[in-house]
Amino acid sequence: MKDKIIYLAREPKISACYTVVGSKESNGPLGQLFDEHCDDDKFSKDSWEKAESEMQKRAFAGALKKSGFIDTDVDILLAGDLLNQCVGSAYGLLDFDIPYLGLYGACSTCAEGLAIGACLYSGNIIDLYGAVTSSHYCSSERQFRYPLEYGGQRTPTAQWTTTGAGAYVVGSEGKVAISQVLFGKAIDMGITDINNMGAAMAPAAIDTITRYFEETGHSPKDFDLIVTGDLGYEGSEILKDLLLGKGIDITNNHTDCGLMIFDRERQDVHAGGSGCGCSAVVMGASVIPRIERGELKKVLFIGTGALMSPMTLFQGGSIPAIAHLVRLEYRGE
Amino acid sequence: MKDKIIYLAREPKISACYTVVGSKESNGPLGQLFDEHCDDDKFSKDSWEKAESEMQKRAFAGALKKSGFIDTDVDILLAGDLLNQCVGSAYGLLDFDIPYLGLYGACSTCAEGLAIGACLYSGNIIDLYGAVTSSHYCSSERQFRYPLEYGGQRTPTAQWTTTGAGAYVVGSEGKVAISQVLFGKAIDMGITDINNMGAAMAPAAIDTITRYFEETGHSPKDFDLIVTGDLGYEGSEILKDLLLGKGIDITNNHTDCGLMIFDRERQDVHAGGSGCGCSAVVMGASVIPRIERGELKKVLFIGTGALMSPMTLFQGGSIPAIAHLVRLEYRGE
Repeated sequence: MKDKIIYLAREPKISACYTVVGSKESNGPLGQLFDEHCDDDKFSKDSWEKAESEMQKRAFAGALKKSGFIDTDVDILLAGDLLNQCVGSAYGLLDFDIPYLGLYGACSTCAEGLAIGACLYSGNIIDLYGAVTSSHYCSSERQFRYPLEYGGQRTPTAQWTTTGAGAYVVGSEGKVAISQVLFGKAIDMGITDINNMGAAMAPAAIDTITRYFEETGHSPKDFDLIVTGDLGYEGSEILKDLLLGKGIDITNNHTDCGLMIFDRERQDVHAGGSGCGCSAVVMGASVIPRIERGELKKVLFIGTGALMSPMTLFQGGSIPAIAHLVRLEYRGE
Repeated sequence: MKDKIIYLAREPKISACYTVVGSKESNGPLGQLFDEHCDDDKFSKDSWEKAESEMQKRAFAGALKKSGFIDTDVDILLAGDLLNQCVGSAYGLLDFDIPYLGLYGACSTCAEGLAIGACLYSGNIIDLYGAVTSSHYCSSERQFRYPLEYGGQRTPTAQWTTTGAGAYVVGSEGKVAISQVLFGKAIDMGITDINNMGAAMAPAAIDTITRYFEETGHSPKDFDLIVTGDLGYEGSEILKDLLLGKGIDITNNHTDCGLMIFDRERQDVHAGGSGCGCSAVVMGASVIPRIERGELKKVLFIGTGALMSPMTLFQGGSIPAIAHLVRLEYRGE
């Protein structure tokens, strides 16, 4: 294909979303919108990793129930998370009798899963799919940064990993269509600070968004909302500034899932939220329902992910990032 | 879809494969078939992880060159590996100007990437894709088991992680077609021994192979070769025995990439080879060229992966596994 944007001839519709979050997310600005929350961040399990799997299990079971389908109706599950070897997904989704495709897109996983599934649907390869992802503050923090007991001071640019899982069932029924997809390229601009992921991911979002507007000829004002997930405060400022320099002004209709999920001042989360679960629960609980109700008609969702590991940073590497774009449209009566 | 097997209406062809391996693999039975090898297992880099990325880079550059395409011709790259956060792929493929989709399928990644790409091709979503994966004995061993310096004794059922990367360029030209795909389900039969991955993965292969023969009505004798990757000796024996119990006799035309890559006696690898790179280089250097020459006409490739992490095993978990099936056919004159 010359044009890298994928125009979906057969548009899949989001039939159901279901979101499960922890206590901090419940106390945030979107708290009332999530389907399920747990005050115990272990979700009655004996480790944070098992809690993360439990969230994915509940999220997908909830989405299935809402959709009216059962697991054997679903052609494939596309899932991934931040844990080493993506075990949040592999263990969390074991109970479902559905072919499983593991993904690794870091915090872009929600967009990656929705997008790959949408392409397979449009190509008549599948008729119904699930996209699931999660993150957990405690399992992420100890894997990527420090043991929680260490009580490390957080820098102002640090983001707070969301404890949450979001699941989507996507097929022929629903009011929110996925009409276009643009897969991102891995971009590395030399950022090495694991406490400033927004700066590392912004260039990937800029690349994808710029390519999108150049190839389509659209401008940001053609969209009700351009939502990134999750650049946080730092990354969002960089994104808006640098896009403005390229003549693309998204200042009036941009938001970021990492800015929506927490109250930055009241909840002491510094630059905002992050983690695979962040965009998954914010899109599922807030943005997609607003499209379903017709309040938003055309939305660009750009899922961003940072693809480093602690090992690559210890070895002096910088942080490659990626951003996948999914265009969502209202298809109600 | 009722039928979970995906029949590809528009068949993609494997245009080029390129394989890069380390010294032990060069000294194995297939040594002469690999495109590139390096006696220095660090591939001139200063860490094993960087060496693994370097292998992926060389493998994909080699496949591109063989295919006659350049990177901007390629619609998407599907890649993954065993390293935490799949950094072998993310860093290794940074230099290529191609949309990137990260996968996590453990040792099934080669099959997963070929299969997802094949579906996207058949659905007219893309016209040309790359599938790349790798593993490295040293980076895997220290991540999953022990520091190499510790010199831990290996158990008889242990497999030896292949140092190698395999890359495929797949599009409209070539003599080897991907005609069918069957995605696997995650299966956990309660195996907890990280030194017996073959036993953990065999049930997933059995599930996929059984579903395939039940749904198609074919029998093993309809195929010139049924190749799993990588069950090793233990897993292969379990696979053949249990399939025989179900009335599916693959004893005469089954092989396993983990049994092909090393000489088990001479090279002291116990149950055979493993790692994402194993099936990637064995298929790319041996099986696919044999199909290209018309020596094999119909081949089932079943890529198997174990989806645990060291953390889940420390926490008492067992090992879920998966097996994706790709049907390959000779389409020469």
